[in-house]
Amino acid sequence: MKTLVILSHPEIKESGSQQYLLSSIPENKNITVHHLESIYPDFNIDVEKEQELLKRHDRIIFQFPFYWYTAPALLKKWQDDVLADGFAYGKKGKALIGKEFGLVLSIGVKKEEYQAGGREGFSIDELTKPFQAMALKTGMTFLKTLPIFQFSYLTENQKMSLLIRYQQYLTREKDDSLEARERWFIQELSETDVTKLNNGDQFVLDQAIEFIEENRDTIDELKIVLDQMK
Amino acid sequence: MKTLVILSHPEIKESGSQQYLLSSIPENKNITVHHLESIYPDFNIDVEKEQELLKRHDRIIFQFPFYWYTAPALLKKWQDDVLADGFAYGKKGKALIGKEFGLVLSIGVKKEEYQAGGREGFSIDELTKPFQAMALKTGMTFLKTLPIFQFSYLTENQKMSLLIRYQQYLTREKDDSLEARERWFIQELSETDVTKLNNGDQFVLDQAIEFIEENRDTIDELKIVLDQMK
Repeated sequence: MKTLVILSHPEIKESGSQQYLLSSIPENKNITVHHLESIYPDFNIDVEKEQELLKRHDRIIFQFPFYWYTAPALLKKWQDDVLADGFAYGKKGKALIGKEFGLVLSIGVKKEEYQAGGREGFSIDELTKPFQAMALKTGMTFLKTLPIFQFSYLTENQKMSLLIRYQQYLTREKDDSLEARERWFIQELSETDVTKLNNGDQFVLDQAIEFIEENRDTIDELKIVLDQMK
Repeated sequence: MKTLVILSHPEIKESGSQQYLLSSIPENKNITVHHLESIYPDFNIDVEKEQELLKRHDRIIFQFPFYWYTAPALLKKWQDDVLADGFAYGKKGKALIGKEFGLVLSIGVKKEEYQAGGREGFSIDELTKPFQAMALKTGMTFLKTLPIFQFSYLTENQKMSLLIRYQQYLTREKDDSLEARERWFIQELSETDVTKLNNGDQFVLDQAIEFIEENRDTIDELKIVLDQMK
């Protein structure tokens, strides 16, 4: 599976969360990171090039800071220019059908405010409906959004946990089962160079052990239920 | 009441609906039409000037074609630049509190598709939640949206009716009562130069008569109810 991260952030060098996420992306994976403001500072988008890029990937991620409850202007320009009639929708527009589409949002306000009665008044799921409608229109499967609330307030452990969720978001096949999570970890572990272990890798290993234990607990519980049925 | 129409359309000269709406705006009214793509073709927005413009108006309208279920890129840039922390929100950001905010959307697909099961999957109310959240955040009252579906398929009478609804949207005090509608028409009628009557004006007069008749019907019905209560 090839993943394209279309990243839009007008001030990416000043963004702690974006720098943190970017630093975690392994170079040997099938991941393309595409920062629009670096490539098109003048807002003139090379439509053909962008369409070719989309065709070569299976999972398309929009990653951006949640400005006024949606994407920054350049990503909107990209949508309007690249996702044209005859390419992304319309009778001959079948280029995106069957791909997956997801959102990675960095959000400055805490999660609790995104609900009725909260300061922001609406949930992330409500506010991202235009993107859900875009996925529907273009024939893409909408993935569960990965929202990152108030990154700078996260503890080191929470940041590490976020990194794993982010990497999974980019690379793990769409499947939330325990088996799929185990498979992903086994893959990650088999690629780990144990001679270069640092804190982050150690955390991955710890997480892996936790999941394996969780799995064993599940099996144990099933055995008890089976025993009681006898 | 002063109304500011912030209009965003990258190809406004080719837009039948926008040209039709613009041609109907009287010059002697307290309406400012502000077409962003004409003023800022290079996307460099004069933030201070825009903020001053906002301060001088009571009702703010975003008028645009519904591209990918939200505003064109330049209007998004305008939001991100102009509606800054300390102006539109945040501790010192009180400039928009108490103003009214509305959307006039031109939409290429028919109304029936904007619902669960329809081709677009979501209603206009669902898709405009980011704007509703913006109004909430900035302390503005969100007006009922004026969506214009498939303008080019409208009959001449439907277009005339749209014009009236549009003019009311820009100028009528927020109040849907029969009394408020009557008041608006009386105001419009008093400003009509009968020596210059054309088809459009005649239609306004016809509508006025219709409303007055509706009013009389309501009064008559109330009388019947009162009689039955005796």
